[in-house]
Amino acid sequence: MSDHGSNPTDQPQPSPQQEAAVQQAGAARNLDAHRDRYAQRTAGMTASEIRALFAVASRPEVVSLAGGMPNLAALPLDSLATEVSRLISVDGQAALQYGSAHGVPELREQICEIMAMEGITGHPDDVMVTVGSQMALDMVTRLFCDPGDVVLAEGPSYVGALGSFNAYQAKVVHVAMDDDGLQPEALRHAISEVTSRGERIKFLYTIPNFHNPGGVTLAVQRRAEILEICRHHDILVLEDNPYGLLGFDGQTYPALRSLDPDNVVYLGSFSKTFASGLRVGWVLAPHAVREKLVLAAESATLCPPTLNQMIVSRYLSTHDWKGQIKTFREQYRERRDAMLSALEQHMPEGCSWTKPDGGFYVWFTAPEGVDTKAMLPRAVTQRVAYASGTGFYADALGSRQMRLSYCYPTPERIREGVRRLANTLTDEMELVRTFGSVPQRSVSGPEAPSPDTA
Amino acid sequence: MSDHGSNPTDQPQPSPQQEAAVQQAGAARNLDAHRDRYAQRTAGMTASEIRALFAVASRPEVVSLAGGMPNLAALPLDSLATEVSRLISVDGQAALQYGSAHGVPELREQICEIMAMEGITGHPDDVMVTVGSQMALDMVTRLFCDPGDVVLAEGPSYVGALGSFNAYQAKVVHVAMDDDGLQPEALRHAISEVTSRGERIKFLYTIPNFHNPGGVTLAVQRRAEILEICRHHDILVLEDNPYGLLGFDGQTYPALRSLDPDNVVYLGSFSKTFASGLRVGWVLAPHAVREKLVLAAESATLCPPTLNQMIVSRYLSTHDWKGQIKTFREQYRERRDAMLSALEQHMPEGCSWTKPDGGFYVWFTAPEGVDTKAMLPRAVTQRVAYASGTGFYADALGSRQMRLSYCYPTPERIREGVRRLANTLTDEMELVRTFGSVPQRSVSGPEAPSPDTA
Repeated sequence: MSDHGSNPTDQPQPSPQQEAAVQQAGAARNLDAHRDRYAQRTAGMTASEIRALFAVASRPEVVSLAGGMPNLAALPLDSLATEVSRLISVDGQAALQYGSAHGVPELREQICEIMAMEGITGHPDDVMVTVGSQMALDMVTRLFCDPGDVVLAEGPSYVGALGSFNAYQAKVVHVAMDDDGLQPEALRHAISEVTSRGERIKFLYTIPNFHNPGGVTLAVQRRAEILEICRHHDILVLEDNPYGLLGFDGQTYPALRSLDPDNVVYLGSFSKTFASGLRVGWVLAPHAVREKLVLAAESATLCPPTLNQMIVSRYLSTHDWKGQIKTFREQYRERRDAMLSALEQHMPEGCSWTKPDGGFYVWFTAPEGVDTKAMLPRAVTQRVAYASGTGFYADALGSRQMRLSYCYPTPERIREGVRRLANTLTDEMELVRTFGSVPQRSVSGPEAPSPDTA
Repeated sequence: MSDHGSNPTDQPQPSPQQEAAVQQAGAARNLDAHRDRYAQRTAGMTASEIRALFAVASRPEVVSLAGGMPNLAALPLDSLATEVSRLISVDGQAALQYGSAHGVPELREQICEIMAMEGITGHPDDVMVTVGSQMALDMVTRLFCDPGDVVLAEGPSYVGALGSFNAYQAKVVHVAMDDDGLQPEALRHAISEVTSRGERIKFLYTIPNFHNPGGVTLAVQRRAEILEICRHHDILVLEDNPYGLLGFDGQTYPALRSLDPDNVVYLGSFSKTFASGLRVGWVLAPHAVREKLVLAAESATLCPPTLNQMIVSRYLSTHDWKGQIKTFREQYRERRDAMLSALEQHMPEGCSWTKPDGGFYVWFTAPEGVDTKAMLPRAVTQRVAYASGTGFYADALGSRQMRLSYCYPTPERIREGVRRLANTLTDEMELVRTFGSVPQRSVSGPEAPSPDTA
């Protein structure tokens, strides 16, 4: 008789095969020997479910409307190479050495000149250079958010911001947009809901211009109202503006920061107007906040790369950077046109989409019953990819939506991609009509951002 | 009669001058309009008290023995400039574009070859490239530490690591070192103390080779014992090794990671062996941990700068980087010799210091009664600067200590700096003898790191 005694019940004993299967399942659960050691914040840290698909989606035969990669083909690489070579030869001792977490002074002055184009009066001392504005997002969240604090954000919102908020266990409450951007009434409603639950709102995160992924712009007449609401309720505003200079008619809008300097923290970036791979962004903040941001940044990266800051600074002082932005704008406008006309031409009845006048993205809504995440593998089979909508929400919304990027593929490829997508969607709608609407997906939390969805 | 009524007590009314002073003090307290909005973690975020001094200390007439800036004078700037120019001209479209948070694959393979020099067998897939190893420190802490969790660290320890631990509200418990590095018996004792208080230890943070700021190296015969203690108590080991290839006799030591791959997370850096201003470091972690680190890094910076990674990769494949490290080693050895002989020659009775056989730093202990932080302004007046000891502890220790760096000044300047420091110290000891020992300073928490103390 074994130590365990005979079977005291009538339950059948597991077969050796069953036991092996159970052991195997246990082993699978235990693959990460460190699983009991992680911090609580890692519970919400999940890989994008569609990440595996990107490996397929990045194959050349697939038209990717998923990524947010800027088109760098128009950059003057040869003259840039010459300039960087001179920088390293002559100033390499400084360019390759540690700098301050605050950032290179000359670049901070130039950043102030750039921000002035959108009406901002800022002092170079109140600017901190960051490793892309993703780092600025992360630092601001680190500074302000305790676990459980609420961040208000447009719905949908930038996936990278949701990733940072999630990393600090902040709770995102979405505020609806329409074609004129964030709705003041929806903002008032959200504030009232959150405060009536006794929760604390730390800031409103907003992308006023050429929204990612929404493709809409906050109407000028709404800006003062939004700021007034936030000020009234003692809520800081975090304004994220990577696309502001990419208005297709050369138009710019008054930055929220220009309208309420003391209550707005402003984020800017060279990723979309120069070169994303340099990872140079910035934050402009009220003085006391900026001081704390520098302390936070020191413990995050010590300092941003000196070389990259000096490259941007030299580029700004030696190249026609405004002309370069005009070139970018014209390219992106041509691609936006290609996408909008192809959508008009090919998309079946019942679809709708936003019509951006700047930036990189169209936000697309499929007819009732279509689940864009479930459809994605079939789209990739048809050689087209997109970013499905749920990744841009911290809650279960967005299942009928998708973000279509026109920034990277050529106009011809965009037209072909939209044609393929329309075919996929038509097939999907046929399925929905035949078998009834696809059941609602289970809740999907925020996903970690990746450059593919940046 | 005013609304406030007459003075109901015999207390004298404040004079208008007093009232103005009170109002002014109130205004001073209220300068930061955002003070009630910050997260709890910012409570421990304080600027280094000696930061203001660095502005003075960086004047050319002051010999700074405070900074940890590598000496880049020996870098082959012209050939590097040519290589980077070619990289931008030919591969600019990739070098200036977003990459993955995981890092450039070719560089990750080269990193594995470098780590093999210290006995590590690692797979490129388990390497993640970071914005300097400071970012790796921050990401590992983000992954493992909830507020209140304990991190064990040598006492003294790297100020940047203390800054990261503090940012995540982890509690640092120091473990004593001697000339052979971390003491196993002290480690056992610390573990027992912490666990008896019911606190949870998340990892041991250690710099085994050429310790910053200690200047000592963990004896080879202690390594297996340290690892065994940690494994026995289910404590992860975080091995930080930026100086490992800078042993003055070309000697290397077996990495802790090479002895216990499953329980060690390893950090490496190009800041000390190539160029700090590129901010390229890395982490090698058990596979499941590395996967989570990539998710954390995506929300922190999206991806490290592509250009910088490709520059390092090209440098490694086209330059004699091992020869370059040999050149660095020889320079640093010469400077170490200059410092040690000057210390022997000039320092008064009762001082002691470590004798590093690699790396950047000497850890110096002044006689009883000397407070190195209080002495620093007087030293700067005498045109020499150092990093006072308390910044390297999370508690009140280190007031008699200082870190002396020999990495950046020339041997001649080092000798002059030590001579000035010896004079300052002699004067200080005279003061102590005359007026009695300086009272113990109040507790100083960890300070934010800066490149000056990196």
